[in-house]
Amino acid sequence: MKSFQLLLLALIVWAPLVSLQGQPSDSVAIRRIAEEVLRHGRAYENLRILCKQVGPRLSGSPGAERAVQETARMLQEAGADTVWLQPCQVPHWVRGTGESSYVYLASGRRRPLQAVALGNSVGTPAKGVRGQVVEVRDFAELDRLGRPGVAGRIVFYNYPMDPTQVQTFRAYGQAGAYRGNGPSMAAKYGAVGVVIRSLASNVDAYPHTGSTRYNDSFPKLPAVTISTRDAEQLSAELRSGQVRELWFRTTAEMLPDVTSYNVVGEIRGTDFPDEVITVGGHLDSWDLGEGAHDDGAGCVQSIEVLRVMKALGIRPRRTIRAVMFMNEENGLRGGLAYAEAAKKDGKKHLFALESDAGGFTPRGFGFSGTPAQYQQFLSWRSLFQPYGASEFVNGGGGADIGPMRPLGTALSGFTPDSQRYFDVHHAASDVFEAVSPRELHLGAGVMAGLVYLVSQHGL
Amino acid sequence: MKSFQLLLLALIVWAPLVSLQGQPSDSVAIRRIAEEVLRHGRAYENLRILCKQVGPRLSGSPGAERAVQETARMLQEAGADTVWLQPCQVPHWVRGTGESSYVYLASGRRRPLQAVALGNSVGTPAKGVRGQVVEVRDFAELDRLGRPGVAGRIVFYNYPMDPTQVQTFRAYGQAGAYRGNGPSMAAKYGAVGVVIRSLASNVDAYPHTGSTRYNDSFPKLPAVTISTRDAEQLSAELRSGQVRELWFRTTAEMLPDVTSYNVVGEIRGTDFPDEVITVGGHLDSWDLGEGAHDDGAGCVQSIEVLRVMKALGIRPRRTIRAVMFMNEENGLRGGLAYAEAAKKDGKKHLFALESDAGGFTPRGFGFSGTPAQYQQFLSWRSLFQPYGASEFVNGGGGADIGPMRPLGTALSGFTPDSQRYFDVHHAASDVFEAVSPRELHLGAGVMAGLVYLVSQHGL
Repeated sequence: MKSFQLLLLALIVWAPLVSLQGQPSDSVAIRRIAEEVLRHGRAYENLRILCKQVGPRLSGSPGAERAVQETARMLQEAGADTVWLQPCQVPHWVRGTGESSYVYLASGRRRPLQAVALGNSVGTPAKGVRGQVVEVRDFAELDRLGRPGVAGRIVFYNYPMDPTQVQTFRAYGQAGAYRGNGPSMAAKYGAVGVVIRSLASNVDAYPHTGSTRYNDSFPKLPAVTISTRDAEQLSAELRSGQVRELWFRTTAEMLPDVTSYNVVGEIRGTDFPDEVITVGGHLDSWDLGEGAHDDGAGCVQSIEVLRVMKALGIRPRRTIRAVMFMNEENGLRGGLAYAEAAKKDGKKHLFALESDAGGFTPRGFGFSGTPAQYQQFLSWRSLFQPYGASEFVNGGGGADIGPMRPLGTALSGFTPDSQRYFDVHHAASDVFEAVSPRELHLGAGVMAGLVYLVSQHGL
Repeated sequence: MKSFQLLLLALIVWAPLVSLQGQPSDSVAIRRIAEEVLRHGRAYENLRILCKQVGPRLSGSPGAERAVQETARMLQEAGADTVWLQPCQVPHWVRGTGESSYVYLASGRRRPLQAVALGNSVGTPAKGVRGQVVEVRDFAELDRLGRPGVAGRIVFYNYPMDPTQVQTFRAYGQAGAYRGNGPSMAAKYGAVGVVIRSLASNVDAYPHTGSTRYNDSFPKLPAVTISTRDAEQLSAELRSGQVRELWFRTTAEMLPDVTSYNVVGEIRGTDFPDEVITVGGHLDSWDLGEGAHDDGAGCVQSIEVLRVMKALGIRPRRTIRAVMFMNEENGLRGGLAYAEAAKKDGKKHLFALESDAGGFTPRGFGFSGTPAQYQQFLSWRSLFQPYGASEFVNGGGGADIGPMRPLGTALSGFTPDSQRYFDVHHAASDVFEAVSPRELHLGAGVMAGLVYLVSQHGL
C-alpha cells in the first residue's frame, strides 16, 4: 500500500514535469517553424503564381486545370514524398460573355448596371428578362407581398450584411440565405428574375458572385447580383419612383460534368504512416477575381506546411497530406471524393485542418472532435499565444473536410481575422495585391505548428 | 464580534454580486458603443478628409495648419462641449525640392536612385556629396572598420528589420538605432554621408523616412534612406564590385521654430469634472504619404470616442478629452506642451490612452500604472473578448502621452495588429486606401469602450 502511494505521488509529481519537459520542445519546434516561414516562406510567391500566372480557377475551366498542374509542381518543389491527382467529376458552369443589364428610368432614359450572374444560375432567354422591380428586405417581406406583389416582376433582395457582427462570417451566414434560396423563393410567387445585393461588408462598386441553389419544386429563375453601392442607389431610385423597369440578360449555363482533380502531396509518417493528417484549402475559385484570399491563400499555406517540415528536416511521426480540394465553390465534389477515398483506404484519418477564411493575420483555430480531443487541443493553446493565434474555440472545420466527419476525423478550421474578408470575397477585388505577405506567412506558420503537434503527439 | 463577522460575510457574499451586477451593464454599454461605431462611425470619412483633402501634415507645414482647423471642426461636429487649440512651438524641418541621387557604376554608367532625406537631417552642399560606399550590417561592423575604412566615404547601413519578430514594433526598435544614431556614428569615423536601408517589413520600392538624431559631439552628416528593394540591389552590386561611387544631394534644412497647436475637444464629466481622461493620436505626419495609419487613424479614432458618447447620449462621470497632438514625428513638442499644461491646471489627470500603431484590427491594450490600477485594468479584459481586443499587457502607452507619466497619470496604448504597419509606415504608401473601414472602426469602438469604463468607474 505504501509503495502504491509512493507510486501515485511519483505520478502526480511526474505528470507536470513530463508535460513541462514536453512543452519547451514543442514551443521551440513551433518557434523554428514560424521563423522558417517568416524568413523563407514560399507561400506568397506561390500565391503570386496562382493569381497572376494561373488566374481565375472555376471548376471545369482551363484555369482550374492549369492550377492542378501548377500546385502539383509546387508540392513536388516543397519536398512531398508523393504527389498525386485524385479524380472527381465536377459541375461545369460557365458565365458566357453576353451579360448585360440596364435600369429603365421613369425619365425615359436607361442607365447601365453592372449585374453578374450568380454561380450555378440559369441564363435568361436571349432577349433577357424585363420587368418592374420589387424590392424586399427579407423573406418575410416577400411572403407578405405574395403572388399579387411579385408575379411577373423582378425581385430585388436588398438584405445587407449586419455591420455589427464582429465575426463577419455570422453576417455572411445570415445574408447568404438570399443568395442561396432567394431565386427559388421568388419563383414560388411567379417572379421572372432576381437581383441580389452583393454579400459584401463594405460599400463599393464590385459585385460579389457565389452559388445559388435552386429548389426543384419551382422554376429556375435567372439571378444576378449587383454591388452594394449599386444596391443602395437602386433602392434610393425605387423609393423616389425613378425606376420604371429593369432588364438583364445572362448567358450562364450548366454544361455536363467534367473530370477534374484534387491535388494531394504527402510526407509519409515515420512511426505511424497509416495515421493521416490532412491540411488543405480549395483550389477552385470564382471567375471574377484571382481567388487570392478565397482560397489561393489556403492552398499555398497548406503547401507551405509540407515545405517547412522538409526545410527544417522534421520527420513527422504521422503522415501529413496537403490537399488542394477542387470544386468547393459550386459543388464540393472534391471534398466528397476525398472523403470517399479516405473511407476506403484502410487508413486512420486522424485529423483534418482547413484554411478557407482568407490569408489574414491569424487569430486561432476552431475544433470539432471528441471531448477528450478538444481538451488535448486546448492544452496546446498557450503555444500559439506568441503568434496571436490563441483563440481556440469549440466547433469549426471547413466545407471540404466536412465530409470526413463521419469517419471520426477530428476537424479544425484555421481562423484568421475576418474584418476584411467580405470586402473582396467572390469579387474582382480578390487579387494577389489584397494579401499581406506577413499575414499569409504567419498563418501558414501557425497551421504548420498545429499540424506538427498532431503529427508528433497524435490526437 | 458576531455582527462584525456577519458584516464580513455579507461583504464577501456581496462583493461578487456587485461586480456581477456591474459587469452586464458594462458589457451592454460596450456592445452599444461598438455597434454605434460599426453602424454609423464617422472615423473613416474623417480619415478620408484628413488624407485626401488635407494630405501630408509635417509640423510647420501648411498641411499641418489645415489639419488643425479641420480636426477642430470635426471635434465640434462630434459634439464636444468645448474645443480649443493649445499652442506649442514646433520645429520646422523642410525637405526642399532638390533631392537627387545616383549610383556611379564601375562600367562608367550611372543609374538614378530614389533616396530621400531623413527627417531633421541637414542638407548636403549644393553640389551634393560623392564618395565610395562602405556597406555595414551594424555598428559592430562599423567599429571594426573604424576611421581607415570609413573616412571620406558614404556609409550604407543595411540592417533589415528582423522578419521573425511577430511583434513588428520590436524589429522596428532594433533597426531604428541605425536611422536614429547612424549618421552621428558614421561622422565619428569621418564619413561624408549616410544611406540607410528603410525601416520596412516588406521588400518594395518605397523609401520610408523618419527622424534622425544628431549627437552634437560630431559633425552633422547629410543622411538619406532608400527602399528595401534598392538596398538589396545596392548591396548585391557592391558585393559584385559594380559600384564605383554614390552621389546624393539633399536640400533639407531646419528653419526656425513656428507656432502650431494641439487640438483638444472635451466632454465635461458630470460627477468628477476635474478628473480628466485623455484619448489621442498625433496630427502631424511625414511628408511623403498621407499619414493614414500614422497617425490619421489615431486622430479620427479619438474624435470618434467623443462622437459615440454624444450619439448614444452617454454622459460620462469624468471629463473625456480627445487630443490631436502636434509634432510627434520630429520633436514631441505637442505632447510636452500638453503635459506641461496638465501639470499646472489643478486637475487630476487620471488616465491617457494613445492610438499610434495604425488603424488595424484591434488586439488589445498595453497599460502602465500602479499594480492596483493594473489589476483593475485586467478585470475589464473579458469585456473586450467579443471584439478580439483582449490582449491586455503590462507596460505600454504612447510617445505623446509619455510626458504625463510624472503626473501620476495611468497610460495605455491601443494595440492593433502589427503585421502590416511597417509596410507603409513613413512612406508614400501610407494612404487612405491602405486602411480598412471595419478595422479602423472596430479599433475606435474598443478605445471608446475602455475610455467609457474609466470614465464610469475611475481608476
